[in-house]
Amino acid sequence: MNIYLDYAAATPLDDNVLAAMQPYFAASFYNPSSPYAPAVTVRREYEAAKAQIAAVIGVRPGELIMTAGATESINLAFGAGSGHVIIADIEHQSVLAAASRHEHTRVAVSPNGGVNPDDIKKAIRPDTWLISIGLANNEIGTIQPLSRIAEIIKQVRAERIAEGNTTPLYLHSDASQGAGQLDLHVTRLGVDMLTLNAAKVYGPKQVGLLYAARSVKLQPQIVGGGQEAGLRSGTENVAGVIGMAVALTQADKGRHAEVVRLGDLRNQLQAKLLDAFPEAVISGNQKHRLAGHLHISFPGLDAERLVFGLETRGVLVATGSACAANKGTRSHVLTAIGLDDATADGSLRLTLGKGTDQAATDQAAVHIIEEVSREKARVGA
Amino acid sequence: MNIYLDYAAATPLDDNVLAAMQPYFAASFYNPSSPYAPAVTVRREYEAAKAQIAAVIGVRPGELIMTAGATESINLAFGAGSGHVIIADIEHQSVLAAASRHEHTRVAVSPNGGVNPDDIKKAIRPDTWLISIGLANNEIGTIQPLSRIAEIIKQVRAERIAEGNTTPLYLHSDASQGAGQLDLHVTRLGVDMLTLNAAKVYGPKQVGLLYAARSVKLQPQIVGGGQEAGLRSGTENVAGVIGMAVALTQADKGRHAEVVRLGDLRNQLQAKLLDAFPEAVISGNQKHRLAGHLHISFPGLDAERLVFGLETRGVLVATGSACAANKGTRSHVLTAIGLDDATADGSLRLTLGKGTDQAATDQAAVHIIEEVSREKARVGA
Repeated sequence: MNIYLDYAAATPLDDNVLAAMQPYFAASFYNPSSPYAPAVTVRREYEAAKAQIAAVIGVRPGELIMTAGATESINLAFGAGSGHVIIADIEHQSVLAAASRHEHTRVAVSPNGGVNPDDIKKAIRPDTWLISIGLANNEIGTIQPLSRIAEIIKQVRAERIAEGNTTPLYLHSDASQGAGQLDLHVTRLGVDMLTLNAAKVYGPKQVGLLYAARSVKLQPQIVGGGQEAGLRSGTENVAGVIGMAVALTQADKGRHAEVVRLGDLRNQLQAKLLDAFPEAVISGNQKHRLAGHLHISFPGLDAERLVFGLETRGVLVATGSACAANKGTRSHVLTAIGLDDATADGSLRLTLGKGTDQAATDQAAVHIIEEVSREKARVGA
Repeated sequence: MNIYLDYAAATPLDDNVLAAMQPYFAASFYNPSSPYAPAVTVRREYEAAKAQIAAVIGVRPGELIMTAGATESINLAFGAGSGHVIIADIEHQSVLAAASRHEHTRVAVSPNGGVNPDDIKKAIRPDTWLISIGLANNEIGTIQPLSRIAEIIKQVRAERIAEGNTTPLYLHSDASQGAGQLDLHVTRLGVDMLTLNAAKVYGPKQVGLLYAARSVKLQPQIVGGGQEAGLRSGTENVAGVIGMAVALTQADKGRHAEVVRLGDLRNQLQAKLLDAFPEAVISGNQKHRLAGHLHISFPGLDAERLVFGLETRGVLVATGSACAANKGTRSHVLTAIGLDDATADGSLRLTLGKGTDQAATDQAAVHIIEEVSREKARVGA
């Protein structure tokens, strides 16, 4: 049995989620657009699932557009306007790629990965229409001060009205990594658009959503039969959306207890590793960080070798984000927070989740300490 | 137990498909981009599934872009260029909507729903870059002469080369409705791009693909982590694609026998209904029609009333395409083939599938004859 410490890359489908999805594979397989009663029931259950999701984030079901995952959702958000956009320097590749289709500013972050709201303010131009800041970073776990950025946006909007500048200014956040650990209520976050991904909270892959406030003028990217209020066509993923509703509801319900539990395990693991290797570098904001995230660098070591060494010991960890992992490139996040190459290249991302218990982190600590020691001896560090 | 005769709208997940998908929900849930062996195995199995699908349609796996269903696939195809496009007047709404983003010509069809290749030829302009013709119509089942259209395209390409016109000319086909009943080998079809949908062949919803020949210059619609060779980002739907591979392989394997079986049942049903109602109108090409399709109109009756009447008898049928069904609009397909309003409004689409047996069609015939007779008596027809 492996010890899986890469929950930020993928999560197994929860039993309750799969159980909720099962009926929609074969028994209730109907097209929700068909007119007869069994299909109308499927439609109703699909809409009920959306309402359940909407309740978790405090919005109306009609403000949710279901998508095939977070990446599509982010692309849809970035398609809602044209002009200048602002993102943080440590955004996920999907945000970087979507932003690259616009004139954009990448705002630098502090060494702990935090965005300074004042830097956002300085970057805003008269033609800036979108600011997209991930709620929590997928590599180092730093949580961003979204509500403070939202305050600034509110001020700028008021100034624009006074000046007669009709350019809208939206705040979007990819909250995929925060689901199940952070409050996702959009009013409290202060966002106009929010991206969520079922696959990060023990739901199915390729199921996600974009919340967009009514003020946002979305442009459909995928046109056709007019599903999702015409904003995203295609026969609905009934099983997937019903699965996402269960996954998100469950994750949100158990959130407070899970954050305490994961934070405790993570802190123990961090303390043990730092105790063994005082030279190790912990990245991410130590106060405002995802409870399950531990990003640790062993300067001078080769993280890829560590990943494979740990794998032979049954411990599965990541070198960086899973997306960038098999491309052999250095993480832009680690460069942005100012890690030198020797430190960045020796970085492991350990992310804990539902299946992680005390025994798992205890054993993981032993294995990591042994493996890092072995590698240090090998390279003479 | 209902008698389901709406297989063109949705199909239940096949047991073997679900069995093949199950391991990837929880046991093998890894992100295919992660570096450790269990994830690499998932990557390999995902690629093997693509290779299996590629073999069915006679292409290389690298020429397949997995999408969240047919609609996304069609949108991706229509995004591969700019200029004039040609479609048939009876295309699915997703093709109509995608075409509406370009200057386009809708070529008229014959009363049996067939596209005349000569009409396509006449519609081609020097700036035409795409011709998109569905392999088989989802409402009336007519199969189009794609290979003859491909021949014309070949000639035009040769002429363009001679003239120094460098505009490419691609043939795209949405073959979603043909899978499991028709040969999908792209060389024999003569297409440059092909759209398929798992949900129409007892596979999962929101799983589809676009085949594109290497000569086609696709533009990614969804950008991000660079999955699907950069043409469609987002963590892969491992379970879904593995399910599609099983679904498509099975459907193709049993195709010849199933076409004979369904054609026989459909012809019996058609004969019984025509025998009872000689005034009924059968639409679609009687020779070149999907074996499971029966489109029948009862002039002067209200198809929606028939659908609900039949539903109370346990027979589930459609009035038109499922997508248009609950919008209360008249089908553009029926208008295009020249049905007058009184005939179009009395149309049922009966589509047979794997679960349809002799008993089902026998009983369906009895119920339809009773219900149509009752409605005829009611309106005094």
